[in-house]
Amino acid sequence: MSQIMAKREKISKRILVIGGDGIGPEVTRWGKRVLETVAEKYGHAFVFDEGLMGHAAIEATGNPLPDDTLEKAKRSDAILFGAIGHPKYDQDPHLKVRPEQGLLRIRKELGLYANLRPIKLFDELLAASSIKPEVLKGADILFFRELTGDVYFGEKKKADDGSWASDLMIYHAYEVERIARKAFEAARLRRKKLCSVDKANVLESSRLWRAVVQQVAADYPDVQCTHMFVDNAAMQLIRDPLQFDVILTANLFGDILTDEASQIAGSMGMLASASVGDGTGLYEPIHGSAPDIAGKGLANPLASILSAALMLQIGFQMQEEADAVLRAVEQVLKKGYRTVDIADKHTENSMIVGTDGMGQQVIQQLANS
Amino acid sequence: MSQIMAKREKISKRILVIGGDGIGPEVTRWGKRVLETVAEKYGHAFVFDEGLMGHAAIEATGNPLPDDTLEKAKRSDAILFGAIGHPKYDQDPHLKVRPEQGLLRIRKELGLYANLRPIKLFDELLAASSIKPEVLKGADILFFRELTGDVYFGEKKKADDGSWASDLMIYHAYEVERIARKAFEAARLRRKKLCSVDKANVLESSRLWRAVVQQVAADYPDVQCTHMFVDNAAMQLIRDPLQFDVILTANLFGDILTDEASQIAGSMGMLASASVGDGTGLYEPIHGSAPDIAGKGLANPLASILSAALMLQIGFQMQEEADAVLRAVEQVLKKGYRTVDIADKHTENSMIVGTDGMGQQVIQQLANS
Ligand SMILES: [Mg+2]
Ligand SMILES: [Mg+2]
Repeated sequence: MSQIMAKREKISKRILVIGGDGIGPEVTRWGKRVLETVAEKYGHAFVFDEGLMGHAAIEATGNPLPDDTLEKAKRSDAILFGAIGHPKYDQDPHLKVRPEQGLLRIRKELGLYANLRPIKLFDELLAASSIKPEVLKGADILFFRELTGDVYFGEKKKADDGSWASDLMIYHAYEVERIARKAFEAARLRRKKLCSVDKANVLESSRLWRAVVQQVAADYPDVQCTHMFVDNAAMQLIRDPLQFDVILTANLFGDILTDEASQIAGSMGMLASASVGDGTGLYEPIHGSAPDIAGKGLANPLASILSAALMLQIGFQMQEEADAVLRAVEQVLKKGYRTVDIADKHTENSMIVGTDGMGQQVIQQLANS
Repeated sequence: MSQIMAKREKISKRILVIGGDGIGPEVTRWGKRVLETVAEKYGHAFVFDEGLMGHAAIEATGNPLPDDTLEKAKRSDAILFGAIGHPKYDQDPHLKVRPEQGLLRIRKELGLYANLRPIKLFDELLAASSIKPEVLKGADILFFRELTGDVYFGEKKKADDGSWASDLMIYHAYEVERIARKAFEAARLRRKKLCSVDKANVLESSRLWRAVVQQVAADYPDVQCTHMFVDNAAMQLIRDPLQFDVILTANLFGDILTDEASQIAGSMGMLASASVGDGTGLYEPIHGSAPDIAGKGLANPLASILSAALMLQIGFQMQEEADAVLRAVEQVLKKGYRTVDIADKHTENSMIVGTDGMGQQVIQQLANS
């Protein structure tokens, strides 16, 4: 192995680790360990910083995104993030300083306009979904959800007398183009199929979306580009998920479809996501801070480990290294190891592991592969 | 039976039948036959009119909704509608006079602001869905989708230079209130649970929606009212559909969620819908005109028959009669009769029937029940 590796270029990267709140720090620790193991195995130099964000940052500094964290973020090549959120804020909706503000601000400061969410099912976990295994087996979808435009950020108005309220659904051509290019580039490295989801039969903003995607598609003649209405897509995702490779869609539609698709995957505990723009990207599990199990050593670290793999693949173009992490996770699942959230009635008691047990298995598998 | 029936009031109703295009007329014929059978059996007087709409109406009169049809609609108590649409218009998107205009206009003229879609699974067809039978069994959801407001009808704008485009997502309090009242009334007659779906954590129009629903809920203290974000709802629908009774939602969200839910039911060929306002309501299958099988006698008439049942239940408050139709359909399915669209590998060839075969079975079962 060392001989093969010796031929490869040694790459240096600076990575900011933000554990955040709840189970965030305990799972992110294993995502980081995986990156360290990859660096050692492949001879890369990964330098790590640590930063605070969310409730933990509010407690320490009064600010959900301290300047120190933001500065470190800007000089990093990528960010490995855990989760933020604390029950205290749910109980008091009027608190002005809130953990989520940290995440919204870092997205804005770094210009993270594209949210990527891979939905890939490990054969061993097929049974966990409410969808039939024969419908799901082999599903491998990569969502590109636009993250900074749409009706979520358009002008909001309401009548003083409460008789009406409105939100402006608006897209600029440049917003559609930049994420479309990223999605076509990704499709090129996959199965070369891109499905753009809109509601162009009814919405003007969707007609613009479709026109821009069609223009960009002309630059990628090797990628098969199709268009689908969002209501049909919501149905097709559960009817026949294997038809999809890359799905490109707007902020609102993507919010709905990615959550629907997470159920296809059976468990939120297995899904990673990336928020990227033209600079530093942020990689994180889609699960939340899960305060009810925080500190108990029960949380599933695989979504953080898969977030690290996504960073290797998308952020650093290290496909081989990313594949090695995926294979390690697959092997550990094949051996039968499960955290409680992905265990089922067929799981033997002796194979149920905690956060650290699962993390160690993956590291071992990865180091010895 | 006649003695029991004799005690009940004889009710007179005028029903307009619009077969429309493609398979519309052949399936609607059986919806009408079911209504005739019910009238005979229960001693009601149903008087039927016929009207043209869609492509058939354009061919005959140049108008997708001829005045004659509209006048008949206005003096009817309910409309049984089939489907509209013809491939000719798909091939030429520039044709100015189009079949769908007929449906849009009749909805507008009759003020049909609420679209009702029941998702109820017949045990015999559980296997047809891509969702696991154990997740689905017993699912019984009634959607109320707002039909005349939202981003579909708000102001549309676009830049002359193509640099941006927008649609206004807007709701007026009165639009939310009138459909909310209908949904709460329906929930009262069911399992007394109503889930209102919105995106109030991000959208101003959703916050208005939620506030109005909460006000209306105060008038229905016997109905348990909950609120759910649309992305979560898209996931929960496939994770655990049994948690839902009545789902109330806006036009766009309802468009997406009802199509997703139709996949829960396995086949579009089994689903009915109602569009209602404060006067005459329109009852129709959710399937389209299916030109590829039109005239072949293969189309499944059950969605039209179930649309007739929905008319009895919602339009005429004839719960007993509606239940009799549902039971008849259930019995025919239990005996093993299937049209091709709902047949599977376990269906014996001898039990596969056409449109008329299936229609006759239901009529016979209903008449003899
Ligand atoms: Mg979401
Ligand atoms: Mg739809």
